[in-house]
Amino acid sequence: MEKYQGKTGGWLRADGPQSDIVISSRVRLARNIKDIPFSLGASEEDLKQVVELFQQAFPKSMYLANADFLELKEISELDQLFLAERHLISHELSRSQHGCVAIGDKEMVGIMINEEDHLRLQVMVSGLQPLPAWQILDRIDDELAHNLEYAVSPRWGYLTACPTNVGTGMRASVMLHLPALVLTEQIKKMPKAIAQLGLAIRGFYGEGTSSLGDFFQISNQITLGQKEEEIVDNIEKIVSQIVEHERKAEQILFKRNPLKIKDRIHRAYGVLLNARLISSNEAMNLLSSLRLGIRMKILEGIGFDVLNELIIIIQPAHIQKWAGKILNEEERDAVRADIIRRKIAN
Amino acid sequence: MEKYQGKTGGWLRADGPQSDIVISSRVRLARNIKDIPFSLGASEEDLKQVVELFQQAFPKSMYLANADFLELKEISELDQLFLAERHLISHELSRSQHGCVAIGDKEMVGIMINEEDHLRLQVMVSGLQPLPAWQILDRIDDELAHNLEYAVSPRWGYLTACPTNVGTGMRASVMLHLPALVLTEQIKKMPKAIAQLGLAIRGFYGEGTSSLGDFFQISNQITLGQKEEEIVDNIEKIVSQIVEHERKAEQILFKRNPLKIKDRIHRAYGVLLNARLISSNEAMNLLSSLRLGIRMKILEGIGFDVLNELIIIIQPAHIQKWAGKILNEEERDAVRADIIRRKIAN
Repeated sequence: MEKYQGKTGGWLRADGPQSDIVISSRVRLARNIKDIPFSLGASEEDLKQVVELFQQAFPKSMYLANADFLELKEISELDQLFLAERHLISHELSRSQHGCVAIGDKEMVGIMINEEDHLRLQVMVSGLQPLPAWQILDRIDDELAHNLEYAVSPRWGYLTACPTNVGTGMRASVMLHLPALVLTEQIKKMPKAIAQLGLAIRGFYGEGTSSLGDFFQISNQITLGQKEEEIVDNIEKIVSQIVEHERKAEQILFKRNPLKIKDRIHRAYGVLLNARLISSNEAMNLLSSLRLGIRMKILEGIGFDVLNELIIIIQPAHIQKWAGKILNEEERDAVRADIIRRKIAN
Repeated sequence: MEKYQGKTGGWLRADGPQSDIVISSRVRLARNIKDIPFSLGASEEDLKQVVELFQQAFPKSMYLANADFLELKEISELDQLFLAERHLISHELSRSQHGCVAIGDKEMVGIMINEEDHLRLQVMVSGLQPLPAWQILDRIDDELAHNLEYAVSPRWGYLTACPTNVGTGMRASVMLHLPALVLTEQIKKMPKAIAQLGLAIRGFYGEGTSSLGDFFQISNQITLGQKEEEIVDNIEKIVSQIVEHERKAEQILFKRNPLKIKDRIHRAYGVLLNARLISSNEAMNLLSSLRLGIRMKILEGIGFDVLNELIIIIQPAHIQKWAGKILNEEERDAVRADIIRRKIAN
């Protein structure tokens, strides 16, 4: 686990297109192995067999040859939370009896074994590039398919534990930072408009349109009856438009009351740079204002990579890994404040 | 009025005893001129006569020889508010038809003419020194008495418009900054305890024990049956004890949770140094935390004189005099934020 500490996944480097607004693009595939029951109905033997089959298959994949393979029951609860905070495993996987994860170089590729489906393959990249993410994932999927026999129906396509994934088994999503659409309240109209386009928007950390830190995830709802490239292409086009709306909302905010938005941003900076105790929620909201300030050039000198990194490393497990021990809430608030101060002051 | 701009009264220099906690000591005397009705019942002729008699008398006083003499009806409403913010005149005086004020060097001495009483003489000095303030005031009073005949009753002493001032006609008060007693909630017990000692405590800006900026005024309630020196001595002793309580409360706060108090103080600093819009109330409360931080040596490099000055100059009339024009509320909030940033950053 040590190799993951002190640095974050490559998808947070903010070197992709539109990465001031689009944090990352993620594509994942749900795959199940032929003739083995889905995880929920599987016996322990079945689950073990899935692990064995995957362990035989993945080293033969070019993308996964050097991946780390971890059995969740071998690592601590804190480390499991740490991986969940990095978007590498789900909380559901932690509850699985034979949950495993394979993590590729720089965390671009992650594969969960024995989650809801036998395999959940994901690729995460920086910025708005769901198509490249899909292309990499497609290659990995093909490589694995050489050595694993997937459950496929000629009529329905890939079979999945949950019917909403049947067909392509693909879910593409983009994580966006939309503070200006939140402040101008335009975000409220988004869910309905986006649903009509076959996509869904939800707060990345939280529910509905009141997302912590103004982060939102947009993903496809349809997995059946469309080609993967079409789905990914559709997301890219719609997200491009949302990005334009966000940039316009920025200008509206500034024109409406430049002092008010400047005040908000400078105050956020002042508190982040001076607090000695800070909760995760407050930090996320202030970091959102700070990020908006950098985007609007009201503040300077802090990179989007640092801001992306902070979203991940101020979470509870990361804080405790940083401190090297289990901490109570107030202790975490203190370490969180320290981490933020150091990262921003640099 | 220009001579008063850009600097504040000498009583704000924070060079008196205990001036980290005790902002100032003030003593005032209520005096009326013999055979002229009290202001409320006086005719215009009477009021004019009071002005004339005072104008003849004051240049003969050593302390007042170089005083500025201003008729309130000759100056703008903004300038009247400006003088009220400096504690040199009352709002009541502004409403008087023939209200005047004489202001001595560095604003240590101020005399209101035709307020509730014909004359209200005050001396304000830095820190906890009500006795020296009284001694100066007593000299001025004596000097004026050579040239003005006061209304005195052999039985009651000095006669005043309001019976609560009869006798010595003296009110001594001390302005204290008590954030630690507020944070530990010990302040709640003070009004009762202090009343038993013949004194009163009240929020300097606001009501009761929820004072804006944690400033409190302690003053004598009794004006009859005690000598002036006794009253002043009593206040000095009791305030000394309150100051000790405040210092102990500081230590309690720190022992209880050092991070929490540090966080409060550093955040206040961060916001004051970065806000672009700030209301008077918020500024007063943050400046209170900042002042506590300087006192506790959690922060450094800002003098108590600067902090005292800020209390005065962030008020609406001072802000508009600084800007050189009438401003609406948001404009004042913007200028206030600028002033604070400049003063603190220096």
